[in-house]
Amino acid sequence: VTTAPRLDISLADRTAAVLTVGTELTTGMVADTNASEISAALTAASLEVVRTSSVPDDVDAVSVAIDSLAADAALLVVTGGLGPTDDDLTREGASRALGLALVRDDAVARRLEALLGVHREEEARRRLMRQAEVLETATVLPAVRGSAPGMVAPTERGALVLLPGPPHEMRPLLAHVVAAVEIPGPSPRVLSCAGITESDALAVARRALTPHAQIRLTMLAAPGGVRVVLFADPGSEEALESAAADVAAALGDACYATDGSSLAEVVLRAAADRGASLGLAESCTGGLVAAELTAVPGASAVFKGSVVAYADALKRDVLGVDEAVLAEHGAVSEAVALEMAQGALTVTGATHALAITGVAGPGGGSEEKPVGTVWFAVAGEGGESTLGRSIPGDRGLVRTRATSTGLHLLFRMLGVAHDGA
Amino acid sequence: VTTAPRLDISLADRTAAVLTVGTELTTGMVADTNASEISAALTAASLEVVRTSSVPDDVDAVSVAIDSLAADAALLVVTGGLGPTDDDLTREGASRALGLALVRDDAVARRLEALLGVHREEEARRRLMRQAEVLETATVLPAVRGSAPGMVAPTERGALVLLPGPPHEMRPLLAHVVAAVEIPGPSPRVLSCAGITESDALAVARRALTPHAQIRLTMLAAPGGVRVVLFADPGSEEALESAAADVAAALGDACYATDGSSLAEVVLRAAADRGASLGLAESCTGGLVAAELTAVPGASAVFKGSVVAYADALKRDVLGVDEAVLAEHGAVSEAVALEMAQGALTVTGATHALAITGVAGPGGGSEEKPVGTVWFAVAGEGGESTLGRSIPGDRGLVRTRATSTGLHLLFRMLGVAHDGA
Repeated sequence: VTTAPRLDISLADRTAAVLTVGTELTTGMVADTNASEISAALTAASLEVVRTSSVPDDVDAVSVAIDSLAADAALLVVTGGLGPTDDDLTREGASRALGLALVRDDAVARRLEALLGVHREEEARRRLMRQAEVLETATVLPAVRGSAPGMVAPTERGALVLLPGPPHEMRPLLAHVVAAVEIPGPSPRVLSCAGITESDALAVARRALTPHAQIRLTMLAAPGGVRVVLFADPGSEEALESAAADVAAALGDACYATDGSSLAEVVLRAAADRGASLGLAESCTGGLVAAELTAVPGASAVFKGSVVAYADALKRDVLGVDEAVLAEHGAVSEAVALEMAQGALTVTGATHALAITGVAGPGGGSEEKPVGTVWFAVAGEGGESTLGRSIPGDRGLVRTRATSTGLHLLFRMLGVAHDGA
Repeated sequence: VTTAPRLDISLADRTAAVLTVGTELTTGMVADTNASEISAALTAASLEVVRTSSVPDDVDAVSVAIDSLAADAALLVVTGGLGPTDDDLTREGASRALGLALVRDDAVARRLEALLGVHREEEARRRLMRQAEVLETATVLPAVRGSAPGMVAPTERGALVLLPGPPHEMRPLLAHVVAAVEIPGPSPRVLSCAGITESDALAVARRALTPHAQIRLTMLAAPGGVRVVLFADPGSEEALESAAADVAAALGDACYATDGSSLAEVVLRAAADRGASLGLAESCTGGLVAAELTAVPGASAVFKGSVVAYADALKRDVLGVDEAVLAEHGAVSEAVALEMAQGALTVTGATHALAITGVAGPGGGSEEKPVGTVWFAVAGEGGESTLGRSIPGDRGLVRTRATSTGLHLLFRMLGVAHDGA
């Protein structure tokens, strides 16, 4: 076990930039989740991300990018290219950009020797040991997972942070760095909303902010919902707090979180709070709702399971949807959604269930039920309710939006039932 | 209906860059799927993406980024910030960077007038009409979906392409642009693999390439698998073809696609080819496998459904796993995986079924069955088979890797059964 070093990162201002290194990113073979994850963490820490960039595994490209981004922002976070292989060139690129030599860090070298274990080939040893080369003025962040350490080096405007690329190796080191960054002024307040359009949320928030002239407002729209972000200058902590409370009250149950939680997290928490358990019956979302819920650690305490009833035979045989109801109303209908939800209660043994059935497209639409027609139903101790929506967008968007609309319906049912209990 | 204009995009060289514009990206609120999707499309068109960047909705930031990226690369593709709202500033940023005036395009304006329909407020009209402002030398790409047109403007080294940000609006315009780019030389060959480590795939590919000295090799690793990419110089089309065939043969059934198809797509196609249908029983992947399969349009022709049996009671009551087997072996075991697969056959009525049960973490591990222990089983007309794996990584990685390992097992079962038929 290694202890993390004390870090003291002082920045000239709040600007930040992110550079992700890897040919797998610039060829689009791998989605760059690090850039958005790091940007979100920096934004939550009140930094302003002015630019993110990706470059291939090329020492010139890395060096040029570090040079220009370190001039653009006080804090530059770089991920990737710190591993043992010959195309891991971020160390060399940073060395060239900052004019700092690479030196062997003895503590890291000893740790790598211990890791080396049975790998005794000279070639493997040489590669692994590349990871002990650090920038001469850098503070080393020992690896929490994996073998590549991170490092923090001072720059003219602030700091350069190098982190390994694999997200599970990057994450603990990033958390340590973010905790060490000292920023004046209050953190932005983020109100996460679903079941409301961006323009409606904007109108509601503007009205609620009328008495709060000094609070600034930004809207962030995503397929699954909208986030209302409130900013204030240093010294306005209380004003921001009061404005956030007013906006949250005005948004009502469209606002599902003020702490950055995902919709799946708040649904699971609401269910746990009232001793409920959850079951699903999914058709057009095809497992996405279950996948969202089970992405949350500990979901098994509340979530029982889902019947992904893609074929009508499963709706009938497993969920017990009436053959006649299917024939009369069609699989995409309020009546079938409701019977699916009731079936999910029976099959999963949960106290509350959500069912979704719709036309995700591109095929399968009709004049009466065009692509994007989706029916939702919830059933359980709080009663039953249904919702019909016409969701614009392609197959992926219809599925994503249906997933968040369904989770939001479940959230409201659990909340309402809870208030009434 | 509007016809797409003839485009002729000639570039000084093969370099390309991508700029995505939006505060929702630089704050990490929304994952930047456009950057990787566009990078992949450009790479597939034989362009070399030398840099991707994201900047917030800020006219200075957009202008500076376009200026520097247009110097870095012959083709610069920019998405986002072309909509009607006041923070859509990409037009103004491009105008400033290239020193080109914005002028009203009458054809676009007429189309927007027609779209305006019932929105008669002056304010809404003014906003919508901002989208008719185009760079003076640009070729306009009429919107295929949505209202924002794209544009292509000449730069010193090649071209600047502006596309709307919503992926379903961006996609058809990007396809039109990519088709118009003329690049000499053969496209790289991409061999998509699963069920093999990066280093094993590299060793196999190197060996197979021994007689093909002029072919260059890159490996791209992702959580779900590995891609072997082969490049050749102009004029070496046949040599590349023959090398790709040799490498694919050496990789055997670890190589599941040579045309960029996803694992879910090839599984669905293999099943359709042999008249099979598919069912699932998922525990630790919690719906991810079903979500992957149903993300493919037309999945319903083959995919019947999934039982996401998160709670052991569902494994027993819905899938029919023997209580005694559960008690003796535990839910994460070969015996339970096999009974789950058999249960999935019965419940879904499919000809082939896959079952996955494992410990995704962070909790739930034990000395005997640590986090990452996953059992897979397939059952159906081709017989039965099981696989145990110890998957490294955090909860998200274990689930993603288990999803691709499971799909690959299904792919192999369908292929083997097919060959034997």
